[in-house]
Amino acid sequence: MAPILADNSSSNLPERDNYVNNGFGYVKNPHLDLLSEDILYHFDLGTRTHDLPSMFGDVKFVCVGGSPNRMRDFAIFIYQELGLDGDGSDITDICAGTDRYSMYKAGPVLSISHGMGIPSISIMLHELIKLLHHAKCRDVTIIRIGTSGGIGIEPGTVVITDIAVDAFFRPQFEQVILDKVVIRNTQLDQKLAESLLHCSKEIDDFPSIIGHTMCTYDFYEGQGRLDGALCSFSKEEKCEYLQRAYIAGVRNIEMESSVFAAMCHLCGLKGIFL
Amino acid sequence: MAPILADNSSSNLPERDNYVNNGFGYVKNPHLDLLSEDILYHFDLGTRTHDLPSMFGDVKFVCVGGSPNRMRDFAIFIYQELGLDGDGSDITDICAGTDRYSMYKAGPVLSISHGMGIPSISIMLHELIKLLHHAKCRDVTIIRIGTSGGIGIEPGTVVITDIAVDAFFRPQFEQVILDKVVIRNTQLDQKLAESLLHCSKEIDDFPSIIGHTMCTYDFYEGQGRLDGALCSFSKEEKCEYLQRAYIAGVRNIEMESSVFAAMCHLCGLKGIFL
Repeated sequence: MAPILADNSSSNLPERDNYVNNGFGYVKNPHLDLLSEDILYHFDLGTRTHDLPSMFGDVKFVCVGGSPNRMRDFAIFIYQELGLDGDGSDITDICAGTDRYSMYKAGPVLSISHGMGIPSISIMLHELIKLLHHAKCRDVTIIRIGTSGGIGIEPGTVVITDIAVDAFFRPQFEQVILDKVVIRNTQLDQKLAESLLHCSKEIDDFPSIIGHTMCTYDFYEGQGRLDGALCSFSKEEKCEYLQRAYIAGVRNIEMESSVFAAMCHLCGLKGIFL
Repeated sequence: MAPILADNSSSNLPERDNYVNNGFGYVKNPHLDLLSEDILYHFDLGTRTHDLPSMFGDVKFVCVGGSPNRMRDFAIFIYQELGLDGDGSDITDICAGTDRYSMYKAGPVLSISHGMGIPSISIMLHELIKLLHHAKCRDVTIIRIGTSGGIGIEPGTVVITDIAVDAFFRPQFEQVILDKVVIRNTQLDQKLAESLLHCSKEIDDFPSIIGHTMCTYDFYEGQGRLDGALCSFSKEEKCEYLQRAYIAGVRNIEMESSVFAAMCHLCGLKGIFL
């Protein structure tokens, strides 16, 4: 198999996409089709124990967010919006066998929790993408709906991410593979973002903008909060940093956007990040 | 306030501990004592809404692990071991108002879930350390009990971490503070580790060792797994990497040890990592 980096002696090079695509789907892993069984550990699902095509073959939208309770509420909301039988209140957690993530299905819409932070959403995305592969899903759109802190915008404003940037305002995600670092593209689907912004204009009092989203590994020191257990900077240093972020085009900060954008981009999965 | 780095133009310097300590406790944040109210957002607890000294003042041990269900089971086990009233099965989640973390108390022992990955456990540790500060707890020991993948050891072996290393086998944790990177010490309490190893010898068939623990940001590509949605390396490359890890003293891999060790070290909190 070709190495990811043209020159293994250098790190931090932009990644060349020489992954092997497994047919029509989103997976890029030639080892996967050789497995007699694929276990999606953190969903408590597997190719031998579950009929994934019949369970998930009709999925067209996947909505993800941090909190399990919120993703259950969202699934019930969608259930009712789609006019499915009943009120959706008896919807069950498909991942009930584990407490790592929660997953609900309302017609063609999956609603899944991803926990907090890049590593947590990354595990979920790997297993979700494999699930879509095994279930032979096509033309899927994944939408992340989550909380974030705004920068220089009115509270309540929805920021539709065009690109995720890191704590240094760089539009990239560093993925460690074994002990190599590769740089991944964090651009999201611009047409989808604009289409969603257009939809938001049809609703009164629903302030929405398109902007850069900064993704950090830390909620307290990494986002300039003065109320963590540790803090070594002044209020002035915090404000100066956030002003620089604003000038760089950052409109909100959160903790999952960069790996979400990078994996969508690499796997050819249409993604929206809110 | 003094900057963290002597020379702000350089990054990746070892951190000089010039944090300001708030009295006797574990917190190092001079802003905290100026707040009229401190809200521990992700625990759904606060200094105005809860009497933290009366709720937590007697805490001497905090046990943490990824899964909420497992930490509930552990709290019930400890409840029974301590011979407290009843069988502990009616123990309630102190953080029931949120689904970010779960927290149970059995006498002087707190049992808390931390989710998956460095960012998730980091938020929990910030709020836990503030909780211990507000509750005026002293002489607390924090013990992490979690799952990990062994390297070159018998399955079932408990690895007591002496030091956490990163994916490049470096004994350090990189903390981003605003847009500065500081390098933190990831050494854990050696006497505690040895004392725990000694205890394990008193139990039959309880294989335990002391070793380095490698902490990664990713479960699939970062830990050399061949069954993720993305994989660009061969089985041979994976094995070669794990062999190098073993030679560097790594005996297990998981996703939270480095920030756990770094925060314990910096805050003066006695920590054990399993």
